[in-house]
Formats: sequence, structure tokens, C-alpha cells
Amino acid sequence: MADQPGVFWLNGALLAGDASCIDPSDRGLLLGDGLFETIAVRRGQARDVQRHFARLQQGCALLRLRLPWDLAAVERALDEVAVGNGLLEGGLRLTLTRGPAPRGLLPTAAARPTLMITGFCLSPVASPVRVIVSTQIRRDAASPLSRIKSLNYLPNILARLEAEDAKVDDAILLNQAGFVAEATTGNIFLKRRGKWLTPFVSDGALPGICREKFLESGQVEEARIHAAWLSSAEAFCIGNVLSVRAVSQIGPIAVPTTDYLRTGPG
Amino acid sequence: MADQPGVFWLNGALLAGDASCIDPSDRGLLLGDGLFETIAVRRGQARDVQRHFARLQQGCALLRLRLPWDLAAVERALDEVAVGNGLLEGGLRLTLTRGPAPRGLLPTAAARPTLMITGFCLSPVASPVRVIVSTQIRRDAASPLSRIKSLNYLPNILARLEAEDAKVDDAILLNQAGFVAEATTGNIFLKRRGKWLTPFVSDGALPGICREKFLESGQVEEARIHAAWLSSAEAFCIGNVLSVRAVSQIGPIAVPTTDYLRTGPG
Repeated sequence: MADQPGVFWLNGALLAGDASCIDPSDRGLLLGDGLFETIAVRRGQARDVQRHFARLQQGCALLRLRLPWDLAAVERALDEVAVGNGLLEGGLRLTLTRGPAPRGLLPTAAARPTLMITGFCLSPVASPVRVIVSTQIRRDAASPLSRIKSLNYLPNILARLEAEDAKVDDAILLNQAGFVAEATTGNIFLKRRGKWLTPFVSDGALPGICREKFLESGQVEEARIHAAWLSSAEAFCIGNVLSVRAVSQIGPIAVPTTDYLRTGPG
Repeated sequence: MADQPGVFWLNGALLAGDASCIDPSDRGLLLGDGLFETIAVRRGQARDVQRHFARLQQGCALLRLRLPWDLAAVERALDEVAVGNGLLEGGLRLTLTRGPAPRGLLPTAAARPTLMITGFCLSPVASPVRVIVSTQIRRDAASPLSRIKSLNYLPNILARLEAEDAKVDDAILLNQAGFVAEATTGNIFLKRRGKWLTPFVSDGALPGICREKFLESGQVEEARIHAAWLSSAEAFCIGNVLSVRAVSQIGPIAVPTTDYLRTGPG
């Protein structure tokens, strides 16, 4: 298993990180039929677990996926992986797929979902990033799949490759109407006329946990963000639960990085 | 491995069908980062292999995925799986993912793709189907991902669930402009004013192999198909390389099934 630390959790068992043990008929592998959550670990503790579970359950409802463990058991499993890998600063990835199944698009009632939890170390330092606006990929704001964290990540991967071609760190995705939706791995926070703004979920923003907390704290408000506002931003951040990074440049335009959003405790 | 016959091929080895052997860090599983082809087997022979390879290579070019075997070796592997499973009538599924990799959206140059080939039996009999038009899912005709056969199949799965709710067999996907694109598992062929028509790839049709052959033979021509034409069709089929099925009903409207498209030899 590429660069994973010591152990991971699969369907109730803690396994060695180099075990190749996924069923080749898993619908996660064959059809992208599943969900994931990336959960921050700080000072050895998984953070915002109940928020992640709430989002996971919304995804399960849309995909009609049954989580075959109660949430208390999943929370214990998250702890086991954090402890088993000696994680202090880093993250946990929870992946839920519809599991091994016969051919065909229609899920069978008998399918037993696959639940996997892996851990990773991560330095909490996040330096400013340079971004472009993707010309190739638009976010499909009307799709119900844009509101959940599914395994269908090829649009984001293509946009990230486009950023790499432009020798920058990330790409901003507009929706099909041309409004700002999100970045490939995080939500967008933009300061304009003294206020921090973030795109509406109905404009294609993933309902991110970090975004949710900024909105609840009153630091940020939702707005429809025009693409033209990006290059005139007073400040600009991309955030997910692992980090909030200042954007220092969008295309050829420098963005001030003197001001940025700070995450609260926890 | 759910309902798979005896053997499958993985990265150069022929394995028993119940082997759970996929690396949990495979990007196919974690991010839907890959492609597939479903290849018909008739009288024990894989059909249209060069056409499938051509489409696979187009997908590889878009995703910048390297096929780590030459095509002659892949063709031998297809035969090995067909023979190893005693397949006479059925199909082979070739799945290519970017393989095991460290965290992060950006593919690393060192990643070694995963190539897997499984086989399945299938009766060549295909009875008429009833369909609805999906209200939940629209095909993103502008996305380059709509022109390749990627692992990101959740839109089609949700539409298929919607068909199941309506107690019918399949769902038709319109594009965002409201024109007909395809069905969840095949291209659409519609007879209107005495001519068989199929949607343009630029309107969101997957460039299907069966569609390609019908176009080359002159049996079918490309057209922009208005949603309203579906219920007034003189005949209507959904086709992929495994079967061409007549549509007998769209929503509450019966469609004549006296006329249908026939596939040629091979």
C-alpha cells in the first residue's frame, strides 16, 4: 500500500498497511459507487467527527447506501487507526463503498458495503498557493452528486492536472453558469469590500466541514461569487478540514496575503 | 468475488475468482481514477477488440494514464480470461486504474496502473424494455469526461435507481440543454420519419462501439434529438456491444416494437 503508515481498518479488522485485500468486484473500484470523508487529527484526536458523520449520512441517503456499522463503532475504529499509526497531526480517510456485487448498475439489496479507514501524517504548516481557473472542467451545480463527497473525483483530477500544466498549485472550478464553485480540494473564501464570502452550495460548492464552521461562527457569509471578483479579491483562501491556505496568485494576478482566515480551536 | 466465474487476470497473473487482492490505496477505488471497457464474447471470441483498444487509448490520453502492457499482451490476456472461464456467449470487462498511489489528487509519475480483466456469461436474448426520462440526472455534454468510459458511474447509478423506483428497466439522460444524450447503459437509436437517428457525442452520447458500427454501416445517422421526439418515435432501441434492446414504453406511452435495429455479423 503506497506510503500508508502501519495499519488500516477494513470491515471490522485492523490490518497491516501493505495488505492487498479489496475484492475486485467491489463497486467502489468498478463504478466509483461510494463516498468518503477526510477527517483531521490534531493532538492525536479525530476532529469534528459528528459533522463528518452527518455529511456521510446525507451521502448514504442520496446513494441509498447502508452503513453496516453503528456510528459509535465507526468512531472507535477511527480512534484505533489514529492510535495504531501513532498519529498526532494528520488525518484519517474513511471510505464507504457499496461493496462487492454482481454485474449491473442497479445495486442489489444483498450487497454488503465496504468500510475502510486509513491514516496519514501531515504537517500543519500550509504555505500560500497559486491558482488558475480551470478552462476544461465546470462544476455541475444542478447535480445532486455535487452536494455529497462521492468517489467520482475525475473532474477534480483533470482540473488539478490543468493546474500542474500551468505550474501552479490548484485550480478553481466555475459552475456552468460561470459563477465560482470551489477549488479541487477545498472550498473558496474570498474577501471583498471587507467581508469574507463563500459560494452557495446551490452554485456548486461542496458542503465542506471547514466552510460550515466558518459560516456558523459568522466569520464568513454565503454569496454568489462572480469569476471577475477572484482577481480583484482583497484576500482569498482555499480551505478544508486539514488546512486553510492563502492564495497568493490567480493566473498572472497577485493577491494580497496579509489577511487570511484563521480556524478556531478544535 | 461476487458471482464471477473461475478466473480473472490482474497485472499479468491469472487468479482465482475469489481472490481479494486489490491494493486499498488504488486510485481506482479511492478516486474513481480509471477507465473500463465491456467487450462482447460471441462463440468464444472477444469482438471488436481493436475498436475497444482505440477508445481505451483515447481515455488514457485524456486522463494521462499509461497502459503498462502492449496491446498484443492485453489481447492475449482477454483470450486467457475467455478460455479460462469457458466463455462462449458473454463478455469481458477490462478495468484500468491509475493504480496504488500516495494521497493527493495529482497523479505521481511513478504510479503503476492496475489492469484487470474479468469475464461473465450472458444470454444473448434481450427482451423489450420500458424506460423513463431521468428528472434527477442530466448528462454533462460539455465535459471531456463524457467522451470516455470512465469509472465515475454514479450519475448513471442514480438514474438507474430512479428507473427502479418507477418500476421500469432503464432511464434516458438528457443533456443540460434538454436534448437526448443516452441511456444509463447504452446509446439511443430512435426511428423518426423513416430514419434511424442517434444523438451526437457533442450532445452527450458516449462514443459507443455499437453506435460506431451502426453509423459506419449507414443504418443510423447522427442527429440532435429533442426530448419530445422520444414519445412519438416510430421505433426506439437502446444498444451496447452486448445487446440491442427494443424500447416498448417510455413513461406512460407505448412505442411500437415491430421495427428494430439488427446488429451485423461479428
